[in-house]
Amino acid sequence: MLAAARAEFAARGYERASMRAIARGAGVDAALLHHYFGTKDRLFMAALEFPLDPRAVAENVFAGDPATIGERVAGFVVGLWEQPEVRERLLALVRTAATSEEVAGAMRGFMVAELVGRVAARLEVAQPELRVELAMSQVVGLAMARYVIGVEPLASAPPEVLVPLLGRTLQGCLTD
Amino acid sequence: MLAAARAEFAARGYERASMRAIARGAGVDAALLHHYFGTKDRLFMAALEFPLDPRAVAENVFAGDPATIGERVAGFVVGLWEQPEVRERLLALVRTAATSEEVAGAMRGFMVAELVGRVAARLEVAQPELRVELAMSQVVGLAMARYVIGVEPLASAPPEVLVPLLGRTLQGCLTD
Repeated sequence: MLAAARAEFAARGYERASMRAIARGAGVDAALLHHYFGTKDRLFMAALEFPLDPRAVAENVFAGDPATIGERVAGFVVGLWEQPEVRERLLALVRTAATSEEVAGAMRGFMVAELVGRVAARLEVAQPELRVELAMSQVVGLAMARYVIGVEPLASAPPEVLVPLLGRTLQGCLTD
Repeated sequence: MLAAARAEFAARGYERASMRAIARGAGVDAALLHHYFGTKDRLFMAALEFPLDPRAVAENVFAGDPATIGERVAGFVVGLWEQPEVRERLLALVRTAATSEEVAGAMRGFMVAELVGRVAARLEVAQPELRVELAMSQVVGLAMARYVIGVEPLASAPPEVLVPLLGRTLQGCLTD
């Protein structure tokens, strides 16, 4: 079922992929697929071994004071990447997205549908989607530089140094 | 000569690669190599079709008011990526670095040796190298999101909308 899901997401993108087509591709009943994975976003996360749930992230981000949203996001993201097994899966995703148009397209659709809109709707600034995406791109860029390219001193800066710097950047980006 | 240079940079990294070894690998005299390419950084840029000169960037960045450094960098970077033939070469570099440890290592050495130190030395803040690298990583992340992954509305935001947003982010990151 996961192989059929990966094929369908790569071929048609996240938005247009259908649970029915994935079930057909796997030779199982759609009810069984729903029973195992629930919703399309859960199936996507399972198929790509996507190590975080965007809805939980969005809720986490908005649980506290808007004036410290940047630092909360920074702490969450750095904490995630610092876990070796999560890091490995994220690196695999970044590398795959950098080299496959299809996977990049499916990931783009997933992030826009499940994260960007959800977060943007709660920001009281002009161009909220653009800001959320700029913040996300900064997080991905940092991850590339720190964990893929390994630039020093960025690669070995301790989280307690990195998080406030990144937090301030994200704060400015998200709320002015 | 360029093929020999690529092989040497990939095998030994930017810092340890030697003009002498590259000349030997290409079967030419070291004097001829110097005549054609001058210094190691120029040879590196030619071999990897690196489309910008870090020294010119550093000078450009520091030519004006420190209070608008972020917006100058943002304008420069976005302007660069908006040129189709430059974009193509940058994308090729990003994709190669994302999938080859050797090329990533050579690029890392080049950027640290030729850009990070030069810019950091002129910033009057704590941890200047870390800030320069964080700013660079944000620029690379933005480029990935806008030009590789193509997330909307980021991918089609006009430069005049994007540059002020990115500029403010970089300003905070570089100068507080």
